Amino acid sequence: MTLVDNENVKDIKIGFIGGGSRYWAQDFMCDLAKANNISGKVYLYDIDKHAAKCNETIGNGIRNHYENADNFDYIAVDTYEEALSGADAVVISILPGTFDEMEVDVHAAEEYGIVQSVGDTTGIGGIIRALRTLPMFFEFGEQIKKYCPDAFVINYTNPMALCTGALYKVFPEIKCFGCCHEVFSSQSLLKKILEEKLGLTDIKREDIKINVIGVNHFTWITEAYYHNIDLFPLYREYCLEHIEKGVPITYEITELNKHFVHNEKVKMDLFLRFGFMAAAGDRHLAEFCPRSWYLKDKETVENYGFALTPVSWRKSHLVERLEKRDRLLSGEEIFEMKETGEEGVRQLSALFGLDDFVTNVNLPNMGQIPNLPLGAIVETNARFSAGSVRPVFAGNIPKELKALIDKTVDIQELIMEAAYERDLDKAFIAFISEEQNTLDLKQSRELFDKMIEGTKEYLKDYFK
Amino acid sequence: MTLVDNENVKDIKIGFIGGGSRYWAQDFMCDLAKANNISGKVYLYDIDKHAAKCNETIGNGIRNHYENADNFDYIAVDTYEEALSGADAVVISILPGTFDEMEVDVHAAEEYGIVQSVGDTTGIGGIIRALRTLPMFFEFGEQIKKYCPDAFVINYTNPMALCTGALYKVFPEIKCFGCCHEVFSSQSLLKKILEEKLGLTDIKREDIKINVIGVNHFTWITEAYYHNIDLFPLYREYCLEHIEKGVPITYEITELNKHFVHNEKVKMDLFLRFGFMAAAGDRHLAEFCPRSWYLKDKETVENYGFALTPVSWRKSHLVERLEKRDRLLSGEEIFEMKETGEEGVRQLSALFGLDDFVTNVNLPNMGQIPNLPLGAIVETNARFSAGSVRPVFAGNIPKELKALIDKTVDIQELIMEAAYERDLDKAFIAFISEEQNTLDLKQSRELFDKMIEGTKEYLKDYFK
Amino acid sequence: MTLVDNENVKDIKIGFIGGGSRYWAQDFMCDLAKANNISGKVYLYDIDKHAAKCNETIGNGIRNHYENADNFDYIAVDTYEEALSGADAVVISILPGTFDEMEVDVHAAEEYGIVQSVGDTTGIGGIIRALRTLPMFFEFGEQIKKYCPDAFVINYTNPMALCTGALYKVFPEIKCFGCCHEVFSSQSLLKKILEEKLGLTDIKREDIKINVIGVNHFTWITEAYYHNIDLFPLYREYCLEHIEKGVPITYEITELNKHFVHNEKVKMDLFLRFGFMAAAGDRHLAEFCPRSWYLKDKETVENYGFALTPVSWRKSHLVERLEKRDRLLSGEEIFEMKETGEEGVRQLSALFGLDDFVTNVNLPNMGQIPNLPLGAIVETNARFSAGSVRPVFAGNIPKELKALIDKTVDIQELIMEAAYERDLDKAFIAFISEEQNTLDLKQSRELFDKMIEGTKEYLKDYFK
Amino acid sequence: MTLVDNENVKDIKIGFIGGGSRYWAQDFMCDLAKANNISGKVYLYDIDKHAAKCNETIGNGIRNHYENADNFDYIAVDTYEEALSGADAVVISILPGTFDEMEVDVHAAEEYGIVQSVGDTTGIGGIIRALRTLPMFFEFGEQIKKYCPDAFVINYTNPMALCTGALYKVFPEIKCFGCCHEVFSSQSLLKKILEEKLGLTDIKREDIKINVIGVNHFTWITEAYYHNIDLFPLYREYCLEHIEKGVPITYEITELNKHFVHNEKVKMDLFLRFGFMAAAGDRHLAEFCPRSWYLKDKETVENYGFALTPVSWRKSHLVERLEKRDRLLSGEEIFEMKETGEEGVRQLSALFGLDDFVTNVNLPNMGQIPNLPLGAIVETNARFSAGSVRPVFAGNIPKELKALIDKTVDIQELIMEAAYERDLDKAFIAFISEEQNTLDLKQSRELFDKMIEGTKEYLKDYFK
Repeated sequence: MTLVDNENVKDIKIGFIGGGSRYWAQDFMCDLAKANNISGKVYLYDIDKHAAKCNETIGNGIRNHYENADNFDYIAVDTYEEALSGADAVVISILPGTFDEMEVDVHAAEEYGIVQSVGDTTGIGGIIRALRTLPMFFEFGEQIKKYCPDAFVINYTNPMALCTGALYKVFPEIKCFGCCHEVFSSQSLLKKILEEKLGLTDIKREDIKINVIGVNHFTWITEAYYHNIDLFPLYREYCLEHIEKGVPITYEITELNKHFVHNEKVKMDLFLRFGFMAAAGDRHLAEFCPRSWYLKDKETVENYGFALTPVSWRKSHLVERLEKRDRLLSGEEIFEMKETGEEGVRQLSALFGLDDFVTNVNLPNMGQIPNLPLGAIVETNARFSAGSVRPVFAGNIPKELKALIDKTVDIQELIMEAAYERDLDKAFIAFISEEQNTLDLKQSRELFDKMIEGTKEYLKDYFK
Repeated sequence: MTLVDNENVKDIKIGFIGGGSRYWAQDFMCDLAKANNISGKVYLYDIDKHAAKCNETIGNGIRNHYENADNFDYIAVDTYEEALSGADAVVISILPGTFDEMEVDVHAAEEYGIVQSVGDTTGIGGIIRALRTLPMFFEFGEQIKKYCPDAFVINYTNPMALCTGALYKVFPEIKCFGCCHEVFSSQSLLKKILEEKLGLTDIKREDIKINVIGVNHFTWITEAYYHNIDLFPLYREYCLEHIEKGVPITYEITELNKHFVHNEKVKMDLFLRFGFMAAAGDRHLAEFCPRSWYLKDKETVENYGFALTPVSWRKSHLVERLEKRDRLLSGEEIFEMKETGEEGVRQLSALFGLDDFVTNVNLPNMGQIPNLPLGAIVETNARFSAGSVRPVFAGNIPKELKALIDKTVDIQELIMEAAYERDLDKAFIAFISEEQNTLDLKQSRELFDKMIEGTKEYLKDYFK
Repeated sequence: MTLVDNENVKDIKIGFIGGGSRYWAQDFMCDLAKANNISGKVYLYDIDKHAAKCNETIGNGIRNHYENADNFDYIAVDTYEEALSGADAVVISILPGTFDEMEVDVHAAEEYGIVQSVGDTTGIGGIIRALRTLPMFFEFGEQIKKYCPDAFVINYTNPMALCTGALYKVFPEIKCFGCCHEVFSSQSLLKKILEEKLGLTDIKREDIKINVIGVNHFTWITEAYYHNIDLFPLYREYCLEHIEKGVPITYEITELNKHFVHNEKVKMDLFLRFGFMAAAGDRHLAEFCPRSWYLKDKETVENYGFALTPVSWRKSHLVERLEKRDRLLSGEEIFEMKETGEEGVRQLSALFGLDDFVTNVNLPNMGQIPNLPLGAIVETNARFSAGSVRPVFAGNIPKELKALIDKTVDIQELIMEAAYERDLDKAFIAFISEEQNTLDLKQSRELFDKMIEGTKEYLKDYFK
Repeated sequence: MTLVDNENVKDIKIGFIGGGSRYWAQDFMCDLAKANNISGKVYLYDIDKHAAKCNETIGNGIRNHYENADNFDYIAVDTYEEALSGADAVVISILPGTFDEMEVDVHAAEEYGIVQSVGDTTGIGGIIRALRTLPMFFEFGEQIKKYCPDAFVINYTNPMALCTGALYKVFPEIKCFGCCHEVFSSQSLLKKILEEKLGLTDIKREDIKINVIGVNHFTWITEAYYHNIDLFPLYREYCLEHIEKGVPITYEITELNKHFVHNEKVKMDLFLRFGFMAAAGDRHLAEFCPRSWYLKDKETVENYGFALTPVSWRKSHLVERLEKRDRLLSGEEIFEMKETGEEGVRQLSALFGLDDFVTNVNLPNMGQIPNLPLGAIVETNARFSAGSVRPVFAGNIPKELKALIDKTVDIQELIMEAAYERDLDKAFIAFISEEQNTLDLKQSRELFDKMIEGTKEYLKDYFK
């Protein structure tokens, strides 16, 4: 950056770590192309340079099809230095390892009767994924400290809380926040209920005002209003009506979405039980609760109406994504401008002084949740404005939810230490402390060893 | 309240304690009349019932002169019960005692060489004023707890931090915040500098984005931006240019304003010294610093270009205000709609779900300033939105400012305890600990006794 | 109290709530009789007045058989007022409900495959027990506040942390601490190891210097020394040698002790796993860990070498106790003076100014364990000295142990709230959050309802 | 270290920084010689190697005159490495700069009417002394981290709190505590009062049980007992009797002690005013209070009956000390074994596992005083036992004392930052914030510049 003529910021430099991303990068490019008051250059860095090159081509091609979409240039680079030196903002979105490692994360425990719906954030799979991911983030943090200590940094990678925390661990002054759109779907559900029950129309998701509290993917809404309408009594009514059959699925179930389907029964069950609205998708929520509640076995999962996402699907879907990429590169297919539902570009604009708004985001706890440990990465509302993102006071975790959320945070802190010290014994203590792990001590050891063995390609540091 | 048809809230009940207010009530009425999406009734309670009656007449007369200004009815009432029962909001703006007591607060110490510029918040005068005011606020808090525990409560009375704190002391669940416009003038100064130095125009005060931190009247700005322009380097330049002669006074100095004049030399001196922008007027700021800095004697005051506000002026000005009131009542003068510069009505609208914005306000410290005591009434930004006002994380008080701010907070906590326990010995410890009190122990005792004697009409509880 | 002639305190008044106690009262009387520098009166209050009367007779009879054992008189009384008015110290040791209720606590879950080793502190049984016990302690707290607010109060009742917390909940200024001898046995184990491994002799338990941290019955030792010998390396060696077969049982296994037997395998397993020494008996420790570790089923329990204590045993043992009591009353048996291993009387002596020592005790967290919530009842070392017991800084709960200990504390806080508000829905949330409860949601509801039904005689308040 | 035969520790290595000390080293040697259960070697390091050599000779000579006084050998060394490598304990007692710098600290401000009684801890002199001392302690901390990170470290140097804090600043894991005997004299005063008023005899100072709270030299006793006698009512009575004339001086006033004389009037005045017992000598206490109270001018000082200690006296007394040293070296005078009143050696013995006791000491605030900042160096009781010194919970600073103590702590933290960053502008903010500095801003600048100039020999780092 960054000159301003009062309403525009130009010459912005963005470094993109994981710039070869096959999923999320295109959404980000789309949002950048639509943001007409900012312009600059995006430097794509990826260990898979070819993938970054492809995104360079795709990104630079957008302008050919859309008016005023030439505000950002894309450049694939070879080094952190090129990507980060003097960057105003950094975006991190990587896949740690390959889907082969993810297969171990998610499916190795099935032999012991343990099923996982996502396996990338918490539970048995989340721990193993964290072990290989965190050392990468320690490295990213060091590079950012070296090349662009003042840059704003957005992390999109899971396990969100731990990855974001890893950056702060090695560089406490980093200006990083973690973005996740899971909470938005709860606002959308409330909007839908308002429309159905009160016949209101033209409601915007953002106008559902909520207080957000928790850790990523186990976030909770403790207060929800539309203007002066308290939405919790309405939601309770709705839950009582739909807890048996779940929220009707109104969209077509396809090969693409069938492994992500859920009918909000877990979310509604949690509300009826605890009195607060869980704010992520059911597949995520289930993994933070005791195994016996929603993930006891496949039958229980089915009764609660949510899908398990097999990694085999991810693998076959990847093939499709690569084919699509080839079509984009060859010009056979045209880059699609769409509503991404992501807020990262708006957040950056606000930080550059062009907007001022409040949304939910992952940040170190500075006191926004007084009864969680300082420094733990928590998700609450925060104000984005010129020069800073600052959390809004969210209040205490309600006593009803405290045991589950504390356990999550505590295990995260232990995994962080295990990864930082490359100490698999500590990691094993985390592994046996997890709610999803109901194996006895002997079986736990066995499974842990298998999973480490199965992902060791990315755990070399731990064996030095 | 309070039905909503999506964009309007009606049937709002507001209880106004100090509803006979001769100053501030008219501004509030003016802002209410201009707020077209809210409507309801305002109940005016005052120990001076006649004054409340006058405001009832004035308030209800507004509609005769302005279109769409009939949204609020005013009713003077005899009891707390009538004013508060079922209120959605409460406004408190009182004068504790008369100007005779204030004369003691401000001028009794002059005999000992101590001059005070305001004398209503801190220092010798602030303490004595607090002793008679806090018991009133304990009473208000009890009444609110009894009649409208869920109401939003705005306090406008000084000493702001202590009065607001007194409400929380007796009713910790109260939804109260304290409003003060002092910070706005610092934004205006920055706006002026931007215009002068960069030739920008059409800047709105609210677009100067700041981080606010401190206690009322000793508030500090630690970060200021206009879009992506960092304003501190500009401000430093400006301070260096104007520290000698002060900011030129561009308005005419009249009988009305001459005792409030200040040319920002204290504010600029503090910036050059500490590196942070003090955010209240010089007359207030000086009182929080060691006496020897700005209030050593009248000559020092003069050199620093600010006025002392004598109570004699307040007394004579009161006569004018009463004459004006009579003219309004008789119809000789017409109620003037103006830009009040106050935000109370906008804040209430936001709490009722009709707006969503961030501004500075006085609230108990819940962690928004981690290195001040929890529960101390601090001033920072806060988000006003449907159903709640929540502080925005402001960060630590910088080490440079910590000693002065801590001392202020500590003495406030001691005064609170002294007032709560009606313990003049504790009050005396506060009195001798004050920065403005440089008397030796014997003289301190003498002066304290005189001031207590001179205001004892309002301190009867302390002598039971 | 209490005159002092420098080395003696006389005229002490002690109120004993649960003064009909058939177990613990005799130990306390024994220790009082041996304490020659204090004297006074003990007022025995019990809802079973007859039992109190019996203890009166037994207590007053001690002097007939032992020299200098006439320092305390025992008086059974009818009211709190008589027991507590002007008391210098209060002792609380009650059985909440009867063994029939305890049978429900401990055995009702067996039908669902859940076994419990003690069932009085944590887990399914601990929760149900707490629900009926805490309202009694709220009452005790109110009575103490009314009749002897300055008295030192010792609680001996389980669930220790919750009962002690209940007193603080209703009377935050109470000078109460909770006593438990479980930790001493860990010191004794270390002493034994020192003797075995280094051939040392004449070691006193108290000379094993330890740092104690945690919550009652899930207490941990993070540091242990004998003079300058660090005992952890020795203990590790010992654990490695004995983890297979457990510590050899050297005493005879009888009807009386067979249900309390344990061979320290759980304790040693926890040390080898976590690196810290768990400081309670295995039967207690197992209940705080995930069910699958040590309490998965009876076979697992057997493998880990500890006994489950059936309530049937308690019932039959009670018959023996009552027979013994009759023999004491009739003079057929003589009161036995013995080494009780309890420290309550020594603690009181110190508080009266006659001793000064450090030992472990249960107190509200004032910061002695920085990473547990303030106010939670925690067990650490504390200094007993004239006029006060003050915790010694124990340090943070190690990250490895944090998840399990936090969950315990969180569930305790939820149960406290449930009991205080007589809210069985909150209690159910605690019930399903427990490590020992691995039932699915439907079965959990069923079991909870049965247990409430089975103990409803003592839960009447909850159904008002 | 360190073999143990159960009651003895031998082969202890102690590194002594400032080992040429002319005052305090001899006391330490004396106490070591008397401690018959520890033995080893003391390595004396000093920038004045000759002085260290002299102490080597003196220390090794003790055994010639006293039986069993051969337990420690003394060796003067040239490097930190020799002194510290493998040390079990480190002692630091240095004079930062010479008495010429101290003359500037204490007397430069007299020209402006400011008198100082000690000038080494707080106030104008304390700040300037800290500026040259802290960089030395940053260096000591680094050396200890390098050569003996596990050693226990005792600091005896003033400004105590800041010097101890400087070690923690550069090496947070250091096991350091600061020792000061000022509090003992308050226990002795209470002992004396007990003897006078109650006719008791044979009271030991340590048997006056106190709760200690505050920062070094501005420490307070909030609770004092002898057995079960509450000493505060007695002390109040005594203060009322002696506040006019002070405590009678019963010893002969000599050249040696006349500049240290004080008759406890400041201490008693503070008690009558605040209700708590200030626990340092009057000369120190006065410096922490507003200048107008006790140090307004020489007349006020005289009225309050305490002496100002001129550096000229220190200089002339140094000559005598050196003469005495020469006599000791030549054998003309024999090393005197005496009651030193110091506890350092007993503390080390406890840490080595040979004792277990509670005394007051300076440590980082870990929560022992909840309402002071974590990490601030505070003085409270602590338990010394095998392997660790752990603070005993002292409670909150009373509200009455909070303002003065907070200001002290805040200014210390600012000075620490100024010294760490070698930033004289920050130091100047501390300088103008001090209670003893009542100069206006212009005069403050002038004086500060003079004092920096006058001590610049030891401030070279600040001008790089």
